[in-house]
Amino acid sequence: MSTDHRDYYRGRKVLVTGGLGFIGSNLCRTLADLGADVTAVDSLLPDYGGNLFNLAGYEDKLRINVADVRGHGMEYLVRGQEVLFNLAGQVSHIDSMTDPFTDLEINCRSQLSILEAVRKGNPSLKIVYAGTRQIYGKPQRLPVDESHPLQPTDVNGINKISGEMYHLVYHSVYGIRTCSLRLTNTYGPRQLIRHNRQGFIGWFVRQVTLGEEIQLFGDGSQRRDFDYVDDVVDAFLRAGAMAQADGQVFNLGGEAPVSLAVLAKRMIEIAGQGSLRVAPFPEERKRIDIGDFYADATRIKDALGWRSTTSLDVGMTKTLDFYRAHKEHYL
Amino acid sequence: MSTDHRDYYRGRKVLVTGGLGFIGSNLCRTLADLGADVTAVDSLLPDYGGNLFNLAGYEDKLRINVADVRGHGMEYLVRGQEVLFNLAGQVSHIDSMTDPFTDLEINCRSQLSILEAVRKGNPSLKIVYAGTRQIYGKPQRLPVDESHPLQPTDVNGINKISGEMYHLVYHSVYGIRTCSLRLTNTYGPRQLIRHNRQGFIGWFVRQVTLGEEIQLFGDGSQRRDFDYVDDVVDAFLRAGAMAQADGQVFNLGGEAPVSLAVLAKRMIEIAGQGSLRVAPFPEERKRIDIGDFYADATRIKDALGWRSTTSLDVGMTKTLDFYRAHKEHYL
Repeated sequence: MSTDHRDYYRGRKVLVTGGLGFIGSNLCRTLADLGADVTAVDSLLPDYGGNLFNLAGYEDKLRINVADVRGHGMEYLVRGQEVLFNLAGQVSHIDSMTDPFTDLEINCRSQLSILEAVRKGNPSLKIVYAGTRQIYGKPQRLPVDESHPLQPTDVNGINKISGEMYHLVYHSVYGIRTCSLRLTNTYGPRQLIRHNRQGFIGWFVRQVTLGEEIQLFGDGSQRRDFDYVDDVVDAFLRAGAMAQADGQVFNLGGEAPVSLAVLAKRMIEIAGQGSLRVAPFPEERKRIDIGDFYADATRIKDALGWRSTTSLDVGMTKTLDFYRAHKEHYL
Repeated sequence: MSTDHRDYYRGRKVLVTGGLGFIGSNLCRTLADLGADVTAVDSLLPDYGGNLFNLAGYEDKLRINVADVRGHGMEYLVRGQEVLFNLAGQVSHIDSMTDPFTDLEINCRSQLSILEAVRKGNPSLKIVYAGTRQIYGKPQRLPVDESHPLQPTDVNGINKISGEMYHLVYHSVYGIRTCSLRLTNTYGPRQLIRHNRQGFIGWFVRQVTLGEEIQLFGDGSQRRDFDYVDDVVDAFLRAGAMAQADGQVFNLGGEAPVSLAVLAKRMIEIAGQGSLRVAPFPEERKRIDIGDFYADATRIKDALGWRSTTSLDVGMTKTLDFYRAHKEHYL
């Protein structure tokens, strides 16, 4: 695998919004290791995933700037930067239905604020936006490629479409070098596992780490694809460094899809603790569940040479080791 | 043509947001004529299209409630209503790029406010949302049907996707009876013709009414489809009355598409005044122009029995007669 896209970051000024969050912090650590001049911006809003421990040991290797992307200050923060990894967001499907206005503020208004700040103050900045497979909704065909219709099942999915499309329009209208990576289920160290409103995988990790029972909705036969966070970080690095990404959207699809029941059982085996129970779907979750989902990642493989390379066993072993060692910072 | 959908409104409590605007006011007048109990809500924001003269002669036949859908009060206004025609919106492509935040407030936040008010206070309300063909962006194929990819070219188009999708999600998740009509170029009496930021057709009407020169961008060969406002009103009445519309989106496509040059020449002939000049595209308009566009209206024909029936000659004659008689209220 070429490492040119990693060398690209030596000495680069890089801004990461959501930099204390799950993927953001893993990205910041890698960027700092590669010699980039990193600023991590995070609001540290309760329950969103930002966690100062995520950058533990890196406090002297990068700058941490606590700020809410909804507020002022982005004009200042984007100034002089060369690459922006734009990962700040509200990611809970459930929260977007109970409080759609906050989801709108964070996932739409803040994205416009960032893009306007870039347009006015630093239009040569490269931006990589963290999109999501959630915008596709319930798949009409599998695997889902980038031309699949967008039919999100909740307000969060709708607002994430806007966030992505704003980036694309600022590319087509103003020439700003933007792209979007549509993430699927990402797992690994530094993910929020405190509550279950940000998807099932962090919650499974929590239950297994605590030796508790994983409760599966339905019969657990829903198949999904998974990316280990290091692979996702590599995709961001490629997209940030490579001009082929400009104006594009890419699925990050995992390798072979796995059912939730198989995933849960494998996690319990790896951890040597925990248990599994199948339960009926709660009504409010059933209505927004999408069944099987896995993405076609051909496009990013062809354009940027990326693919998901970490096996679920290897990635999950690292993940569960991490939480076993550091659980006091995440529970 | 069946008139059952018109009889449906006798004695019905109906709310129309954007009720002093172009389509909203024509709809309010028809509803009042059909014996509905109509409340027209409008912000009368300068430059948006709301005009008290649009309901002249109907002041005693319906209620006019001046209110900004961004503010509070929708909880009260939706109470006890049976049908909501939701036409309030910011419709200028250009304005959405110069001030994307206002577009977001009106086309996204307000829609969420309305839907939350309905969900909490009147979940049996039927809602017909005014969508737009603009969400498709530059056509990949013609005519454009409802499955065409959504690739808007400006912030307004993105936010109108959100507005529509919020309605669909409130249907699928909460069972609220919503639908969306994706309007194409609508023309007729009571359209704003004061400035050229709400599309070309009102501007053409203005120039012809004043006997001035119509300036066409490019060579005027871009083909578009057109609906006379009475036909659009009939589509709203059908969608509001018929359960087949619930949870659906429908294109309102005109009959045969016409080039802008042919349209302009025909208008000049009908008016017996005005002239035509071809000019190069201004850069900021060229970047968001979509070329040829015409919609496939098969879906609404099959489901609701609607089609565009007014010829361009008949509709434009009525339109130009109206502005000749009332131009002091629109210039």
